[in-house]
Amino acid sequence: MIRPFLKFIDWESSGTEERINVLKRPKSSQNLELKEKVSDIITKIKNEGDKALINFARLYDGVELKQLKVTDAEIEQAFKDTPSDIIEALKTSIQNISKFHSLQKKEDLKVETMSGVVCEKKTYPIEKVGLYIPGGSAPLPSTLMMLGIPALLAGCEEIVLITPPQKNGEVHPVVLAAAKLLNIKNIFKSGGAQAIAALAYGTESVTKVDKIFGPGNAWVTECKMQVGFDPEGAAIDLPAGPSEVLVIADENANPVFVASDLLSQAEHDPSSQVILITTSKNVLDEVEKQIAIQFELNPRKQIALEALKSSRGILTENLKTSVEVSNLYAPEHLIVQVEDLDFVKAKIKHAGSVFLGPWSPESVGDYSSGTNHVLPTYGFARAFSGVSLDSFTKSISFQELSKEGLKNLGPAVEVLAEAEGLYAHKQAVTLRLQYIASEKTEA
Amino acid sequence: MIRPFLKFIDWESSGTEERINVLKRPKSSQNLELKEKVSDIITKIKNEGDKALINFARLYDGVELKQLKVTDAEIEQAFKDTPSDIIEALKTSIQNISKFHSLQKKEDLKVETMSGVVCEKKTYPIEKVGLYIPGGSAPLPSTLMMLGIPALLAGCEEIVLITPPQKNGEVHPVVLAAAKLLNIKNIFKSGGAQAIAALAYGTESVTKVDKIFGPGNAWVTECKMQVGFDPEGAAIDLPAGPSEVLVIADENANPVFVASDLLSQAEHDPSSQVILITTSKNVLDEVEKQIAIQFELNPRKQIALEALKSSRGILTENLKTSVEVSNLYAPEHLIVQVEDLDFVKAKIKHAGSVFLGPWSPESVGDYSSGTNHVLPTYGFARAFSGVSLDSFTKSISFQELSKEGLKNLGPAVEVLAEAEGLYAHKQAVTLRLQYIASEKTEA
Repeated sequence: MIRPFLKFIDWESSGTEERINVLKRPKSSQNLELKEKVSDIITKIKNEGDKALINFARLYDGVELKQLKVTDAEIEQAFKDTPSDIIEALKTSIQNISKFHSLQKKEDLKVETMSGVVCEKKTYPIEKVGLYIPGGSAPLPSTLMMLGIPALLAGCEEIVLITPPQKNGEVHPVVLAAAKLLNIKNIFKSGGAQAIAALAYGTESVTKVDKIFGPGNAWVTECKMQVGFDPEGAAIDLPAGPSEVLVIADENANPVFVASDLLSQAEHDPSSQVILITTSKNVLDEVEKQIAIQFELNPRKQIALEALKSSRGILTENLKTSVEVSNLYAPEHLIVQVEDLDFVKAKIKHAGSVFLGPWSPESVGDYSSGTNHVLPTYGFARAFSGVSLDSFTKSISFQELSKEGLKNLGPAVEVLAEAEGLYAHKQAVTLRLQYIASEKTEA
Repeated sequence: MIRPFLKFIDWESSGTEERINVLKRPKSSQNLELKEKVSDIITKIKNEGDKALINFARLYDGVELKQLKVTDAEIEQAFKDTPSDIIEALKTSIQNISKFHSLQKKEDLKVETMSGVVCEKKTYPIEKVGLYIPGGSAPLPSTLMMLGIPALLAGCEEIVLITPPQKNGEVHPVVLAAAKLLNIKNIFKSGGAQAIAALAYGTESVTKVDKIFGPGNAWVTECKMQVGFDPEGAAIDLPAGPSEVLVIADENANPVFVASDLLSQAEHDPSSQVILITTSKNVLDEVEKQIAIQFELNPRKQIALEALKSSRGILTENLKTSVEVSNLYAPEHLIVQVEDLDFVKAKIKHAGSVFLGPWSPESVGDYSSGTNHVLPTYGFARAFSGVSLDSFTKSISFQELSKEGLKNLGPAVEVLAEAEGLYAHKQAVTLRLQYIASEKTEA
């Protein structure tokens, strides 16, 4: 192992260009070749539906599927096969996530903006939603909870779950156990771009949905981007890039904890990025030592080592600069291990989810604290929020004017429509006002 | 003129495929050639910045710009040049839009999901936003109000307005007058894809923004889609297609009003779509006659005639079916002119903005009722909401666990991290719990 693990940068002595480069994300794997391959997959799904999904499962997952839909019997069996401590842990998570997300319900809004002009804004569930749960190196029941719970709370009429089969042709039992606890039954075996395409355009078995949720690899991400703005496709939750964590630590931070948090992120994926910003060179050095120690037992060490190649250890003069640098980076996960939490908290402008203090490792938010773990990565936190109850709803505005209302507001509308050169817009008001005037004359 | 204007469809006697085809949108003008041209424009803006913007203004707007930024003197002069009835009408609109949007402010959320586990969701303004106001055939001060007011209410730190110059090299005075009323000063002269690219990537004069808002032609839309998912680009408000209206009318509807609403939409753009769904053949016939009459004086008649080529007049058996067909179409604007408004309102599932009753023409919402007029077109209302205060904000979640909290929650996190095969995730909890245990032993 090559030490130091974290690429060291002294912020104060760095020039502007150096600073910009330091905070640049590793290049994502999006490329033209991938674009074309994904586009071909979409075409195949559109043309051949279920048959294409079964062919792709043979090709990419190495399994021969008899049917795409998971049967009730498979769900029941998986639930029985899941150890009771996992069931209990899932229940704890479901309880906390439900509590936090149910509080996000929006009240409908109704107001008389001027006499006789009533405006409303009402919230509706998105009718049909698709949840993609990646398989890959680990089953992710946690992601199912993070997507399924707000979908259920929002009242989505149709929830379609799609997830790759394992080598044995089955969906991982823990994922099915979580689905059982949430009472989600519409589950299909498919992974990668083909699964996203199936949700976006529908097949004989898979219902076409209005919006697609869930993280995935570069293929999944690329496919979400291709369908996300297609009127015939489906909306998507978030644009995405590799996952990342940024830790702000002062001289009081415990290096054991900081190292464990950095490694939690690094073990995710070789393309993950981890950044430590600290005012203490001593903490930086101690964290390096701790990384070396904690590495030893980790079976995902090779993934973490790869990820650490694009890591950063940034030394700043003071805590204010630490937060400013963090805001420039706009991290998905921000862990704050400093004495003066309030000082840092008040200065945060861009982040997905924030973990405050020594007893709040990222993993509590990944599973069980109640917050959502589907978050804006790769700097998207500047403009995007993580998944929440809102992600599963939309709003419709209403207006209803009385005759009085139109008499009050109409003249302003006529003036502005004329100023914009829109004749019929004006006429729609004028003809009504004339009608009202003629009624009066008759009366 | 060819009558009937509206392509007639009897819903009950139509087959499934016919029904699907009837509700298909006219093909949008997105195509591969446009994609490449827009991509070239983006590259030019990235490489040449202001110089490229000035060259494009010469090429596409036919003007020689000395500087891109509108001066304070230009704004003051424009305000003086704007007739007082327009200023008053703008003020009325600003008042109503402000009232409706200020009520949309979200409270921050804080809850203890379990003992010692505190979760928060806090709302933040998006720091830098770009507002694109199209020029084209008409100046659109209304769109500036619809975007500028929520941006100001949200507290966005930087609001950049960009809009094409007229042939005389000036921005239309009414647009500048509206900007003056809103106290928006950061205004640039540029239109089309190049303006969007400038907002997304920044130039010497134009600040790079985090999110871009505003409608536009096919070039603008294509450019927004290209920058919208680019991590180096900027988020966008909404995907977009041509504008549209759907009117649901029963036998009591006034054909004069219905025709005026259909024409309001048709005059927008040749690609606009207008649909009338009614239970009354008589109303349909009378609306046809009214369209012919109201056409006569409209200077935008040719645009409207072109748009009417893809219009529909759909006859349904009952009001329930009328709403169901409307939900299938998911219109941007939905006008409801029926006796039993409550019946229809309760059944609406997909729409951008709804206009209830005879005294609520679309134009009141376009300008002054208080609701937003930047809405999901082209079927996007199935998953998207119109622009609102939320569009200018994002949220960040926080969690802070006490030692007690981690002791309560930690074991569940350990179990789930192990189930997902994420060793370091588990360790981040285990190492902390061990520390807490050792503290106790020492004490």
